Amino acid sequence: MATVKLWTDEEVSGNPRVKAVFEDIRAIRKTDFVNNFWRALANQPELLERTWSSIKRVMIEPGALDPLTKELIYIAVSTVNSCSYCIHSHTAAARSKGLSDEQYAELLAVIAMASETNALSNAMQIPVDPEFSVA
Amino acid sequence: MATVKLWTDEEVSGNPRVKAVFEDIRAIRKTDFVNNFWRALANQPELLERTWSSIKRVMIEPGALDPLTKELIYIAVSTVNSCSYCIHSHTAAARSKGLSDEQYAELLAVIAMASETNALSNAMQIPVDPEFSVA
Amino acid sequence: MATVKLWTDEEVSGNPRVKAVFEDIRAIRKTDFVNNFWRALANQPELLERTWSSIKRVMIEPGALDPLTKELIYIAVSTVNSCSYCIHSHTAAARSKGLSDEQYAELLAVIAMASETNALSNAMQIPVDPEFSVA
Amino acid sequence: MATVKLWTDEEVSGNPRVKAVFEDIRAIRKTDFVNNFWRALANQPELLERTWSSIKRVMIEPGALDPLTKELIYIAVSTVNSCSYCIHSHTAAARSKGLSDEQYAELLAVIAMASETNALSNAMQIPVDPEFSVA
Amino acid sequence: MATVKLWTDEEVSGNPRVKAVFEDIRAIRKTDFVNNFWRALANQPELLERTWSSIKRVMIEPGALDPLTKELIYIAVSTVNSCSYCIHSHTAAARSKGLSDEQYAELLAVIAMASETNALSNAMQIPVDPEFSVA
Amino acid sequence: MATVKLWTDEEVSGNPRVKAVFEDIRAIRKTDFVNNFWRALANQPELLERTWSSIKRVMIEPGALDPLTKELIYIAVSTVNSCSYCIHSHTAAARSKGLSDEQYAELLAVIAMASETNALSNAMQIPVDPEFSVA
Repeated sequence: MATVKLWTDEEVSGNPRVKAVFEDIRAIRKTDFVNNFWRALANQPELLERTWSSIKRVMIEPGALDPLTKELIYIAVSTVNSCSYCIHSHTAAARSKGLSDEQYAELLAVIAMASETNALSNAMQIPVDPEFSVA
Repeated sequence: MATVKLWTDEEVSGNPRVKAVFEDIRAIRKTDFVNNFWRALANQPELLERTWSSIKRVMIEPGALDPLTKELIYIAVSTVNSCSYCIHSHTAAARSKGLSDEQYAELLAVIAMASETNALSNAMQIPVDPEFSVA
Repeated sequence: MATVKLWTDEEVSGNPRVKAVFEDIRAIRKTDFVNNFWRALANQPELLERTWSSIKRVMIEPGALDPLTKELIYIAVSTVNSCSYCIHSHTAAARSKGLSDEQYAELLAVIAMASETNALSNAMQIPVDPEFSVA
Repeated sequence: MATVKLWTDEEVSGNPRVKAVFEDIRAIRKTDFVNNFWRALANQPELLERTWSSIKRVMIEPGALDPLTKELIYIAVSTVNSCSYCIHSHTAAARSKGLSDEQYAELLAVIAMASETNALSNAMQIPVDPEFSVA
Repeated sequence: MATVKLWTDEEVSGNPRVKAVFEDIRAIRKTDFVNNFWRALANQPELLERTWSSIKRVMIEPGALDPLTKELIYIAVSTVNSCSYCIHSHTAAARSKGLSDEQYAELLAVIAMASETNALSNAMQIPVDPEFSVA
Repeated sequence: MATVKLWTDEEVSGNPRVKAVFEDIRAIRKTDFVNNFWRALANQPELLERTWSSIKRVMIEPGALDPLTKELIYIAVSTVNSCSYCIHSHTAAARSKGLSDEQYAELLAVIAMASETNALSNAMQIPVDPEFSVA
């Protein structure tokens, strides 16, 4: 259960700002399916507009990292933040962008390894080597 | 300041188990530099051996993800865990593996974007769409 | 499913220490409804007493911050800690204290913005400006 | 030490995109001081532009929450994320917006209380009461 | 719902590497019950092998900390990481190793107290006393 | 640098409420040394009183868990919360209560192991086995 109402397509159609974003989501993603994240954000039209605009810029427009790599980073962040919704949605997104079973196994191994050494480094409060310094 | 002593090369040379790991680190990485993480772990020889063995397996041996992508995932996890040491060491590692300024800018953008939508999804406790389900 | 039993009113009535706290909760909050947090804590009577005492002091007694502002801070903390129960209970509490839709939208925007810049600042390990120092 | 270079005013003056943002920051904030967060983001001009644009929209433009309340929420999020830089900068910002010692003491008390009950709720995995449900 | 398939005993029996680990789990734990963590990891046979090997070494082999104390530490970490699965599985494990109600109440009190003072220390960015320094 | 002033003994002596707590800390701990955590909390006398009262109750009074075990749990929580101050102060406290090098090595191993499996469980969103259910 959510802390907000999830907007149905009928409710969306009655709000021009929300409707415009949903139409753009469908056009850009080339699918009629709009997931619950956007149906929850519909309660805050301006936040919906800004978030979708950022997602388009960061995750969809071509850039220096390929789309699958960006999804792997997204999954890593979501896992540490224990965001159940985001883990599910971005693991599905990664798969739709070609994530293989071998790549997923390795992603899990890297996230686990990093979590382990993060804990060790924080527990021992290891000072940063000057060799890692910039400039 | 650390919660443990950081071993000098001289101290390392007096402990066969620790010495063997340090020699392997230098051989595998092709550099005489051994960073503080291993000098701190030297206090726990068995944990040192197991951690280096895992790092070799996960981060160094060839696999389904390329070495730079694995460093990006490592940075993402370390950032959310607020592990200062790990952020510094793996950002340096990523640069040594060819991370460009454009890729780094995009990595930051994805980590920031994920952190933002993680917060929104958790705050609204959005239920997972059945469409994201596996089989 | 919980890791502990949730006490029914009948069970509560058989334990004087727990009963006293539940009666105080009902009297202070002017409602017969006692939520699961207290029914779970009932397994640890002393912890129940201390926690209720602190909640009364921090969240209910008049202070320098108004009750709604305190709920917003509570929601922010609970979101980052990914505490599903606390997010639900304190969002409901904030609404019962007058949280408007516009305020909620802005709360979400601030939590998301802070999460984003936290990630950026941690990722770049930005040094604190001396200007922020306290005398 | 940071993972990126912090731009000096002289370096900023040589990059039109960065220069425009810094001039806007100085104009909006009515001070010549530009803190390190922006000097670090200057390495990523587009991310700098988007982040400053969001900060203006969320934290500076008038809205449903007053400016001080928004800073308190920011401090709460930054504390749980253990973002040293953000805690310092937003505590300073809150003070410049009128935070009293009494309000700060109460902010600390609420953050501490929420952290405590978050831990208890997560440890006992307490199920959400249906009474907290929306609609 | 998981992001991966949970392997049934029939599926396990068809994969020699996975089968060997499951047989070892059953032999070491002296029970036919194999929990979902291993059924999920079965999708990544090598990660399954390494994780089970580490768990045996860290949690099962006799060491300097008794088995119940190790479970309490595990629960503490899992609570702060908001890992629902791990909280449930390790609270059950602690109970099977003799955790009393009084010990559990005290565990909760310590986790809550630490979470509270962690928040206070981070919020005030308290500098570490030189008296806590090693050597 | 802290966000608050750290009180000197001279300043403490001028405030009866703060002075009373500091005298109790010194009497209970049988040492003249009062660490920075209390010197920072001195700015909020009531919060200081309540926190010291809770610490005495949870960490100092005899209970179902021995003092060293409680420190280990405290270190585990502080590590995951990335609380530098708390990691240092409670590692020092654990050592003063008899923590051996072998126990510390094992504490680190358990914290690391838990962090690793927390990440794996969260990443795969493994459903809780009904066998772990209470009652």
